[in-house]
Amino acid sequence: MADRNQTSESPEKKAAGVYAASLVKSGDAVGLGTGSTVAYTIKELGRRIREDKLDIVGVVTSYQSEAIAIEAGVPLTTLAQTPKLTIAIDGADQFDENLCAIKGGGAAHTREKIVSMSAARFIVVSDPAKKVKHLSVSVPIEVMPFGKELVVTSLKELGGSPVLRAAAKKDGPVITDNGNFVVDCAFGEIKNPQELALKLSQIPGAVEHGIFMNVDEVIIGKADGTVEIIQK
Amino acid sequence: MADRNQTSESPEKKAAGVYAASLVKSGDAVGLGTGSTVAYTIKELGRRIREDKLDIVGVVTSYQSEAIAIEAGVPLTTLAQTPKLTIAIDGADQFDENLCAIKGGGAAHTREKIVSMSAARFIVVSDPAKKVKHLSVSVPIEVMPFGKELVVTSLKELGGSPVLRAAAKKDGPVITDNGNFVVDCAFGEIKNPQELALKLSQIPGAVEHGIFMNVDEVIIGKADGTVEIIQK
Repeated sequence: MADRNQTSESPEKKAAGVYAASLVKSGDAVGLGTGSTVAYTIKELGRRIREDKLDIVGVVTSYQSEAIAIEAGVPLTTLAQTPKLTIAIDGADQFDENLCAIKGGGAAHTREKIVSMSAARFIVVSDPAKKVKHLSVSVPIEVMPFGKELVVTSLKELGGSPVLRAAAKKDGPVITDNGNFVVDCAFGEIKNPQELALKLSQIPGAVEHGIFMNVDEVIIGKADGTVEIIQK
Repeated sequence: MADRNQTSESPEKKAAGVYAASLVKSGDAVGLGTGSTVAYTIKELGRRIREDKLDIVGVVTSYQSEAIAIEAGVPLTTLAQTPKLTIAIDGADQFDENLCAIKGGGAAHTREKIVSMSAARFIVVSDPAKKVKHLSVSVPIEVMPFGKELVVTSLKELGGSPVLRAAAKKDGPVITDNGNFVVDCAFGEIKNPQELALKLSQIPGAVEHGIFMNVDEVIIGKADGTVEIIQK
């Protein structure tokens, strides 16, 4: 996660992020994900609004994407006003051959899941390194502080290795935009993410897990500026 | 819900609540539920601590049960320090023949579920009116404000009739002790609560639903001061 807030340019992420913005058309209500790749999308949407009179509204998934969208000049609304989105665009930490993804490295996966499930079409933007045969990165789980011990115990019973995510720039654990903790839980290679997701959903105190099964399309940026598109 | 904060005595609730306290023994770590029936339990535990040298620690499920426990003189700890409880005692809004219960009329069901699932034995205290063949009261669902629209849409797709719970003594919706909304969702007669619970668990933005499937024993208080005990 060292490069989450990177300021250096990534041609791969930029290719994916900018291409995804081209899928947005006037009249769309757009879910705006969180992270370094989708930041390129938001900035490109801002450029098209200024230069091409693109007429859209966005719904953000975090304070980070809110700040980027405001800086880019993307008009924002809320799910309360616009509960049905045309399209949502977001990054991922890893995705497998069935387009099942793990998200939450940025601790924004609960709002990201709500926004992506509110959209008719959910696009993930990625660099090539995140494509794997079987998911294997730790699954981030947003956890109500009161339920931390029960969640950790339950995750161990499921065969996982849970670790409370420690913050940087503040003492103690990370606090999400929703005021909760994040537990990162390694499960080794995840052969059946659907089954694991169902079990994680049922743990009291686990607000939301980072397994996403609603990805319609992944856009992988290449270093030469081209993209590879994988559809479900 | 008109009698949730009643101050008048209920002999039925008192019979159940006081009897439940007799199941607690020295050395126990006790989950202390929320509501008018378990309030009798907490007060009786306080009496036994003072008069019988009962030596226990309690973990509360709400600001309400915290206040009652402090008033009663029950020493309190937290799940962080005592993650495994001996016994948890709580009320319920309704329970069926399989001891499947609906809770959350007091908007405390998320912490109540975490505490009850942390206990080796979970006792529900009740009056006779709450025993039914099939669960039929609205299911309270604690909802992250950001996800309200998606939750409401998802509940309608499941055949429910969701209503955002309005507050009294403040404008707008009820805010839970965790800072969330409560949506009460009627489903008519619930023939298969396990199946419904599984579906509710999977809705992003739904922090926790009020269907409890972990009740070990129900104590029903009668007007004459006796109790009926139903074990799973």
